Amino acid sequence: MSNKLFIYNSLTRKKEEFQPLNPPFVGIYVCGPTVYSNPHLGHARANIVFDILFRYLKQLDYRVRYVRNITDVGHLENEETGEGEDKIAKKARQEQLEPMEVVQKYMNTFHKNMLQLNTLEPDIEPRASGHIIEQQEMVKVLLDKGYAYEVNGSVYFDMEKYNREHKYGILSGRVLEELKTNARTLEGQDEKRNSFDFALWKKASPEHIMQWPSPWSDGFPGWHLECSVMSMKYLGDPFDIHGGGMDLQFPHHECEIAQSTAATGRQPVKYWMHNNMITINGQKMARSLNNFITLDELFSGEHKVLEQAYSPMAIRFFILQAHYRSTLDFSNEALYAAQKGLERLMKAVETLAVLQISDSSTVSVSELKDKCYRAMNDDLNTPILISHLFDGVKMINSVNDGKEKIQANDLDDLKNLYNLFVYDVLGLKEVKADEKDDELTGKVIETLLSIRHEAKHNKDWKTADRIRDELGALGIVIKDTKDGASWEKS
Amino acid sequence: MSNKLFIYNSLTRKKEEFQPLNPPFVGIYVCGPTVYSNPHLGHARANIVFDILFRYLKQLDYRVRYVRNITDVGHLENEETGEGEDKIAKKARQEQLEPMEVVQKYMNTFHKNMLQLNTLEPDIEPRASGHIIEQQEMVKVLLDKGYAYEVNGSVYFDMEKYNREHKYGILSGRVLEELKTNARTLEGQDEKRNSFDFALWKKASPEHIMQWPSPWSDGFPGWHLECSVMSMKYLGDPFDIHGGGMDLQFPHHECEIAQSTAATGRQPVKYWMHNNMITINGQKMARSLNNFITLDELFSGEHKVLEQAYSPMAIRFFILQAHYRSTLDFSNEALYAAQKGLERLMKAVETLAVLQISDSSTVSVSELKDKCYRAMNDDLNTPILISHLFDGVKMINSVNDGKEKIQANDLDDLKNLYNLFVYDVLGLKEVKADEKDDELTGKVIETLLSIRHEAKHNKDWKTADRIRDELGALGIVIKDTKDGASWEKS
Repeated sequence: MSNKLFIYNSLTRKKEEFQPLNPPFVGIYVCGPTVYSNPHLGHARANIVFDILFRYLKQLDYRVRYVRNITDVGHLENEETGEGEDKIAKKARQEQLEPMEVVQKYMNTFHKNMLQLNTLEPDIEPRASGHIIEQQEMVKVLLDKGYAYEVNGSVYFDMEKYNREHKYGILSGRVLEELKTNARTLEGQDEKRNSFDFALWKKASPEHIMQWPSPWSDGFPGWHLECSVMSMKYLGDPFDIHGGGMDLQFPHHECEIAQSTAATGRQPVKYWMHNNMITINGQKMARSLNNFITLDELFSGEHKVLEQAYSPMAIRFFILQAHYRSTLDFSNEALYAAQKGLERLMKAVETLAVLQISDSSTVSVSELKDKCYRAMNDDLNTPILISHLFDGVKMINSVNDGKEKIQANDLDDLKNLYNLFVYDVLGLKEVKADEKDDELTGKVIETLLSIRHEAKHNKDWKTADRIRDELGALGIVIKDTKDGASWEKS
Repeated sequence: MSNKLFIYNSLTRKKEEFQPLNPPFVGIYVCGPTVYSNPHLGHARANIVFDILFRYLKQLDYRVRYVRNITDVGHLENEETGEGEDKIAKKARQEQLEPMEVVQKYMNTFHKNMLQLNTLEPDIEPRASGHIIEQQEMVKVLLDKGYAYEVNGSVYFDMEKYNREHKYGILSGRVLEELKTNARTLEGQDEKRNSFDFALWKKASPEHIMQWPSPWSDGFPGWHLECSVMSMKYLGDPFDIHGGGMDLQFPHHECEIAQSTAATGRQPVKYWMHNNMITINGQKMARSLNNFITLDELFSGEHKVLEQAYSPMAIRFFILQAHYRSTLDFSNEALYAAQKGLERLMKAVETLAVLQISDSSTVSVSELKDKCYRAMNDDLNTPILISHLFDGVKMINSVNDGKEKIQANDLDDLKNLYNLFVYDVLGLKEVKADEKDDELTGKVIETLLSIRHEAKHNKDWKTADRIRDELGALGIVIKDTKDGASWEKS
């Protein structure tokens, strides 16, 4: 498992060696947000997890096309039954806006937050409302092949026929018969042949603002359809990796598989990957459960459960300290610990830049490098990678303290290793917003320290103490050592 | 003209009082970029000009819906004849990317640059490729009404019929007969009834990647169609203001007027507004003329004609120092002057924050305020507004020097005035990226200055000079005055 990438395939329920369909090209499709509210910590996790996949595959020299959609129509309130009001239309009614104003507002916030978290932009970010024709074309194919039926201007997917021929539920393990038993009777379901059939096209009621003409009715596409259509359009059929949150396995991803398989006769995706949930007090963090903390609240600290503000990089580090397939419980303690851990890691990276070289090494950089790759190759195990990087922090500090030695080419390797894994793979960055200003502050402080050094030399203790005290009042602590004074922000 | 907003209507060729169709609501549609290359100074101007309109209308308490489109399909190389390769498809071929990857890449850069220039995000940013059905619906209407005809799967607008009934060219003053004489014969034109007819729907050649099914052919919409369709969809018919660059008057806006008027029987827009061009050596700056400087080049200084880098705010200020209907010639001298002017204005705003109050005023704030509004009400005359703000700078400095006096409520008014016009209306902001760090730098420098003050007091000239010299080396100039020392970045 050492030098080959293995990822856990939700479809086969095991770790498999990653072998793209058409190397060196890799296609990734990830389910993006439904843009009717501000992104919360759960959105951060899904997007950071697949950002790591995207970054690591690029590091491995694959030519990756990363597609992440924006759902701006068709996502109804009750996801399991596919009934209720469109989430965006409802928000538009509440905020007295045109639906596309709601979409624009929350899409902008999503983009802003994702940039703050330093996730790379996807190569294509298609919108559901921008692919109505393509979705109608797929409905036509499914009707032609007998996997769909029209009732009163709406078109539904025929689950029993599909299940007979292809077996429904291969991803989530759900069995169709159980769904039948569990299904409740809800408005609009009476026109379906079976309660578990889902809508491909819904006739719009007159008050429904978002609707388009179609051969069946003025209406809108079913939620599941967009991802089948847009992944196929931009990545082909089949494609390599489909990602998303574990909560999307059923019904969303099952329905995607059913639609695409019915339309093309083959499985649409080689590897399915799912990230686990953020929990809070043991419960999934979700908008529908009303227990979420938005990213803007986390960054500003303005939420009743937050003890302080957390930087986007602290949030990112917090998320990466758990493996993506484990649940991750929110707590102030865990976030604070992540923040401190990140600071320690970044301080070591700074130390690394000024390490002294020796004629020989007493440390093994190649071993560390090998461990880092092995962690990532084992289903993107970022917490293990981070623990190896912290072993490296000890190494760096030991060399800095003179307890260990490192020779020039090993030091180069070590710098490259940290650049690669800290910045390129984990996507961390300096918390400082403006390095130039920080640099100037540093230089001015150095000037003060050298004035103080001279004052001490001249036994002008009053001036020396005054400089120490005034810097202390500004939150800058001076540490005197035998080699002179250094400083840090307290 | 003082307390009512007048804007120049390109349609009537005169300044008119602005009276929205459905107050307090105002709808604005502005032609956005075709996203196949990096935005240049010309894009900055168009977007800043209409950002000012958007900001000022909001200040006047209108409820504004601002729609700016993204052209991601259908914009062909030869704009006058509507022939040639699709600009995005061509770039995709050159860069070996999927067309939507090209779109995403340059759309992201556009958004980044517009945020750097501090333009407000539009309320809705519709994409042409996201409104194919809506465009097809308008083609159907135009066919039904006899204003369009189909040939070999393409649909063209019948200019002669339109001209007979509505007169073509009311915006640009072009006369149809002249267009006929000037038209050259180009590929594909033979199927048109007249060379000046333009495409509403084009049948795609097999190698054309971007195409959609339609009643006429697998093809793509004509460039002009999207703006008629999307403005009507999101702003209604008619709507208040349509903006764009002067180079879009003909043929783009004329064709929009023709399509919409033919479809609905009435003029689509009450006020047409056009910004003038950026010139360089007297020639319009344009991608097609290959004499452009991109915004990223301006911000980094990396272009052969640039003597230095210019901050986004310096660029913004440079653009606002000209009236939007005048041409604006690029030069390093003008940009440098804008940068210095902006610094002077911003320094005065800082001074304003620390002005001392008196029992009475010798300055008239209400008169200044009145002048500022009058400038904006006169067709958004930002250069006049800026000159009034500089008169205010003199006022601020005179009060600061003790030559004039200001009482408390006048000072409040003056602060509000500068907040309103500098930040909210002109959309300027501090150049400093991280004010906190800057603040810390300032405090550390103050500490050094007080150490120096004491050294001078103790006749320790060596230390005093050393502090001055070391700060000088960091680009910080100390100025000694009778009240002590102050500093500024050189």
